[in-house]
Order: sequence, then structure tokens, then C-alpha cells
Amino acid sequence: MDDELDGLLAQVLARTDTADPRLAEIFRSAVTHLHAFVREVRPTEQEWLRGLDFLVRTGQTCTGTRNEFILLSDMLGLTSAVDAVAHPGPPEATPSSVEGPFHSPAPRRALGATIAEGPEHGRAEPTFVHGRVTDCEGTPVPGATVDIWQADDAGFYDTQDGEQPPGNLRGLFTTDEDGRYWFSSVLPSSYPVPTDGPVGELLTALGRHPMRPAHIHYHVEAEGFRPLTTHVFVAGDEYLGSDAAFAVKDALVVAPEPREDGVLGFAFDIRLVPA
Amino acid sequence: MDDELDGLLAQVLARTDTADPRLAEIFRSAVTHLHAFVREVRPTEQEWLRGLDFLVRTGQTCTGTRNEFILLSDMLGLTSAVDAVAHPGPPEATPSSVEGPFHSPAPRRALGATIAEGPEHGRAEPTFVHGRVTDCEGTPVPGATVDIWQADDAGFYDTQDGEQPPGNLRGLFTTDEDGRYWFSSVLPSSYPVPTDGPVGELLTALGRHPMRPAHIHYHVEAEGFRPLTTHVFVAGDEYLGSDAAFAVKDALVVAPEPREDGVLGFAFDIRLVPA
Repeated sequence: MDDELDGLLAQVLARTDTADPRLAEIFRSAVTHLHAFVREVRPTEQEWLRGLDFLVRTGQTCTGTRNEFILLSDMLGLTSAVDAVAHPGPPEATPSSVEGPFHSPAPRRALGATIAEGPEHGRAEPTFVHGRVTDCEGTPVPGATVDIWQADDAGFYDTQDGEQPPGNLRGLFTTDEDGRYWFSSVLPSSYPVPTDGPVGELLTALGRHPMRPAHIHYHVEAEGFRPLTTHVFVAGDEYLGSDAAFAVKDALVVAPEPREDGVLGFAFDIRLVPA
Repeated sequence: MDDELDGLLAQVLARTDTADPRLAEIFRSAVTHLHAFVREVRPTEQEWLRGLDFLVRTGQTCTGTRNEFILLSDMLGLTSAVDAVAHPGPPEATPSSVEGPFHSPAPRRALGATIAEGPEHGRAEPTFVHGRVTDCEGTPVPGATVDIWQADDAGFYDTQDGEQPPGNLRGLFTTDEDGRYWFSSVLPSSYPVPTDGPVGELLTALGRHPMRPAHIHYHVEAEGFRPLTTHVFVAGDEYLGSDAAFAVKDALVVAPEPREDGVLGFAFDIRLVPA
């Protein structure tokens, strides 16, 4: 049987005739691993069809605002792996982290504005967020675009929740002449990824919780620098050690502290890599 | 970076806590290969998202009568690989071959009936098909169910083509006391798999044709024997050496010959494996 499997794989690889060497490389690697998987686990037909049905349902769960395959990639640590290979940076740069499925266009807001305009659920803690965008040597980057998105205090993004006004807990800021940005928000809380689809079924079957530790998402762009997508995580969160998306990095964890006025605050500086 | 990738994979594997050892085995193998794929090809974020989008569209192309993921599995030789590991049989048994996406319930028909009730397209060659279902020693198996499906002379199954009556070119036969079955049909012709979806795009990008050599599909069941899904292929077909589904096996190729009455005919005997 191993001869038969070797022969099959050789046929599949030999049949490819593309002028695109990158496609050929990706295809060869994907097909070789998929065949190795079949050889290793020796699926029954029922198991194979169940696996394909999982993929069908994952595709059919996607909508304009929900991408279940990105979620699957996140939950398998693959998005973080791609992030690691796609965005290697010097150790002094702010590490990147996964984009996740919840980015959408944010309203442009003035520095200092609040991004929290939605209903609260009794747990919302006002929080002041500030920081500076610099290069890796600490030189300020004025005019950088800082795109922010986060879930509300009940764990939902505006796009998941009809009660939040569109653009709630999102904001597009431009750093000032010193590279600074600042805004008001509420302290993010940990939340579950959507569990009502096939990926939720998989997490349950694997005995895994669906929780992401509290975080605010950042996407930063500035001329002359590589765009950066990352998170800032809140120190002390019970899920920091078991993020369902495997996206936590030590350098991205900050501890909010009460300021003189009693409001929580934290700083998150961002060091960009030259393009 | 390799340390980071090792750490990620270890985290994903360590997080699993399922009481189902088979699921754990399948998950470990799948995740390990997926991470190895990322490490090997080092995808950009754009490439990764393009790949995920391909999977989303593949899922969304599926309908009640079309399964684009099964088609993808077929086109990558994976279905044939699963068939090889799932249905090992003694060399004297009839080899199995892939089910494909076109099976649907067939009308029960009397031995000798025709399965061709649809419109013809000017190429249809009447063909008489007969054979015997036996065990591996040649002892006849009476009362075996022989489920037949094939495309018409334009290359379409009834479920793809509103002009064909439902059940056209399908038939459910029961072998007689000598294990024999026989029916009339038209000679199958080679045909392309559906190319208007993501899998068609992939074949084009890979420089591959979408053709399947002419065949008739069989699913045979009998008490005391393992069910068998297989094809019979028509000798001389130009695509026998490059079946898009990698399903051809030498023992499944037959040469139709004109009978005394001028009608083409061929025999396809089936040797089942005990359950």
C-alpha cells in the first residue's frame, strides 16, 4: 500500500505545469503534507468525509463580517506562525501579533477623543490609553496612523452587536508632532471567540476554552515604515497564559494603573521597523 | 524565529485535552503538518489570506448536489489515497476507487433494463454492460445490490442537468441466482469536472486539464461482504493516463467490443472481499 501511496503522490506532483514558481512551491509543500497526513492517520472514509464536511460548514459559516476560516487559522496557532515568518523584526521593534477577524474601517477621531460610545453593561472601567510611535532608535514618528479596535465590556465588537453604534470602540488617530497618540476608552475584558460555528465545535471536542485575554488591537502605518498589526494585552488577565489564538507576547503586556484623577491609564509605545 | 515556531506548535499541541484518543491523534498530525507547511513555504500574510479565501469560497460553492471540497480532495489525489488506506484488499479482489461527488439515490430497475432515458446529443453509443458478482474464489453472490451511475454522452450527470429526467443513467440492480447483472446504457464519454468554482481556478493555475476518462461508477453491497465503490473505465480513452481524480487502476479498465448484433458490449466482473 505504501507503494500505491508513493505512486499517487508522485502522480499529483508530476501533473503540475505552472509557470509560477511560487505557486509550484506552495502546492508541492501543501500536497506533500496532506498526503503524509493521510498516510499517518489512515483515515476511514467516514472520518475523511467528516473532515471535509467540517471544512464545508466552516466555509458556509462565513459572512461579510465573519470569517470562520481565519478563526480556525487563529485557533490552530497558524495565524501566529504566519505572523512570525512574515514579520520578523529586530528585537527592539514592537512585536507584531495576529489581526484576527474583527478589523473593520474605524471612524477618524481627534487625539484625546473617546472611542467608547456604546451601551455599557455594568463592568466598563474608564481607561486612558496613550503612547508614542517611534522608530527603533526612539525618534518620534509624527503623522502615523493608529487604527484601534477592541471589544466592549461584554466582550462584543460593534460588528457582532446590533446595540452598539457602528464604529464603537474603534478609532483612527494620527500621531502629533512628537509621535504621540492618546484616547479614552473602557478597559477591555477577556471574551470568547464565536463558538456557535464549526470552530466552536472543534474547541469543545479538543477540551479547549474559547477565551482571548483582554486586549486592544492596533494597526499602525507611517510613511517609510513597515505597517504593524499588534495587540496590547492587560496584565493579570486569567487567560494570558492560554490565549485561544496563541497571540500573546511578553512585550505586548501592560499593567494599567490608576492615575492621579483615579482613572485607569496605561502607556503603549510602538517602535516601527523601517520599510 | 524557528524557536518561536517550535514554541507555538508545542503550545497548540499541549492545549488539547480530549478523552478521544483518535481525535487527539488526527489533530496532532494535522496541526503538525500545517505548522510544518507554514515553516516550509513562509507565506506572506497576503498569501495566507488568499489561501483562506480559497477555502471560504470552496465551502460556499457547495450546495445540496455539489461538494467542492470533495472535488478538491479528488483533484489532489487525496480521495484516492484515503481509498487506498481505507480499503486494502487481497490482490484477487476488485480494486476500489473513489466515490466522487455525483452519487445520488438511483431508481430500482429490473435486470436487463436500460438506464439511459434522457436526451441524447448525437454521440450516444448504445452499450450492453454485464458481469458477475462473486467472492474472491469466484463463487457467485446472488442478491447483491449493484448501484450504477454515469454521465450522459455530453458529460453531465442528471443532477447537473435540468434536461435529464431524475435518475437518468442511474440504476439499482439486484444480481440473479448466479450473481449476474446486466443492463443497457450508452457508452460513457470522458468529461470535465466542474470548473466554474475555486477548484477549476486551481486546476487552471496548475496547468492541469479537468478531464476524467470515460467511466461507469459502481457501488456494490451484499450481505457478508465489504461494500465496494469502484469505477469501470473504457480502454483507449485519451485521459486514462491523466485522470484529474487519479482514480484509474489497471484492473478497472475494460475494452468494449461489438457483439453479434452490432451493439457494443463489455463485461465487468466484481470480486468482493468478505466482511
